[in-house]
Amino acid sequence: MQTEPVSAGDFDAAARDAVYRAIFTRRDIRGQFLPCPVPDPVLARLLTAAHHAPSVGFMQPWNFIVIRDAGRKAQIRDLVRQARAEEVRHVADDRQALYRSLKLDGIVEAPVNLCITCDRSRAEGSPLGRWHNPEMDLYSTVCAVQNLWLAARAEGLGLGWVSILDKDALKALLALPAHVTPVAYLCLGYVSDFADRPELESKGWRKRLALDELISAESWAGGGEDALKALIRSA
Amino acid sequence: MQTEPVSAGDFDAAARDAVYRAIFTRRDIRGQFLPCPVPDPVLARLLTAAHHAPSVGFMQPWNFIVIRDAGRKAQIRDLVRQARAEEVRHVADDRQALYRSLKLDGIVEAPVNLCITCDRSRAEGSPLGRWHNPEMDLYSTVCAVQNLWLAARAEGLGLGWVSILDKDALKALLALPAHVTPVAYLCLGYVSDFADRPELESKGWRKRLALDELISAESWAGGGEDALKALIRSA
Repeated sequence: MQTEPVSAGDFDAAARDAVYRAIFTRRDIRGQFLPCPVPDPVLARLLTAAHHAPSVGFMQPWNFIVIRDAGRKAQIRDLVRQARAEEVRHVADDRQALYRSLKLDGIVEAPVNLCITCDRSRAEGSPLGRWHNPEMDLYSTVCAVQNLWLAARAEGLGLGWVSILDKDALKALLALPAHVTPVAYLCLGYVSDFADRPELESKGWRKRLALDELISAESWAGGGEDALKALIRSA
Repeated sequence: MQTEPVSAGDFDAAARDAVYRAIFTRRDIRGQFLPCPVPDPVLARLLTAAHHAPSVGFMQPWNFIVIRDAGRKAQIRDLVRQARAEEVRHVADDRQALYRSLKLDGIVEAPVNLCITCDRSRAEGSPLGRWHNPEMDLYSTVCAVQNLWLAARAEGLGLGWVSILDKDALKALLALPAHVTPVAYLCLGYVSDFADRPELESKGWRKRLALDELISAESWAGGGEDALKALIRSA
């Protein structure tokens, strides 16, 4: 039996750093999309990356709807406008002006939109890891989204996840069957730039939390891991 | 305004390939953990990668519970044993022997276990992207899991997501407050190897689906995207 870890030589420092760079420079894109088309070979690589996400019981519950039609995009943009008008009423009074000033989607500008769905019935009769936690298929689909997002970053493409949407209206518009849930509506395309910080941070919506304060040992709020926290604070 | 995409020169071919390699060679580890410890600087980098996941409304709803205590791990392993005994009763008769033969967690062997939670109340009073889809905070937390998983792969560490668990029992054991949901229970450590294929594929639980059959155009089952599908089939 192999007892030495495979770490050394598998990913060298440059390869490891590239993965971290994709993670740290990934942004949720709203306003920086360019009209240049996304070549099919690039889109094929991104979808393949999504398809290689982990899935509970190797269920692969996802489907990918590729949306390029301007009329279709305009319909979905209208759903987002309506949902924004509903959501803003629930935002604290003193933050409504800021909310209204934010650009929250790039549906029409992005050359490609993707709806990634979850087929809740794909593993019927063979639960593995889902009997107690049936939401695991939805979570697997989210892993596919994040794979695609990081692969897009490495290809120089931006992606934005639009969640201000009435799911039932979206389901009807895309003709999804009852057992299929739209997990993510995504805008994809080349971008003029990737900002240094998340837009909601730079525009003052919320601050980056201190990571060391989100770590505990052995249980919720359990003390300990002081060396780990000190390392994080000093990074 | 910048109108040229940033793609060229941002990630060169080697950097891009490193990201894809992490995505394609990531495995859900159950039986390959080695006892060597995970150094704090490595764990700090992995948690920082998770903390830089996208989150709805920049809510950062996650917390990280680091579990190293053998007694605590044994308690959670016992929860998994009980849950397996419950789940297997719902598996089709002709697959129960295969189910029973699978190693489905490495809780005791992995030097570090992590519970990644979602604080459902962290953005109260300021919904952004969650009024219509309140589950978006759970999905953000899953993005943090996937960031950590890919960073671990690039560090040569394996990770396994254990979902055969009664969530209420886990909540009680880890003393989570009512408004906090355990999204992922993870086993982390160096490994003897990363298998070429997912274990549930090589052991015959399920087959890899054909990606081109999961793609449609403009709507569910909408025809089109023939060039894209042909590229994927020929890859």
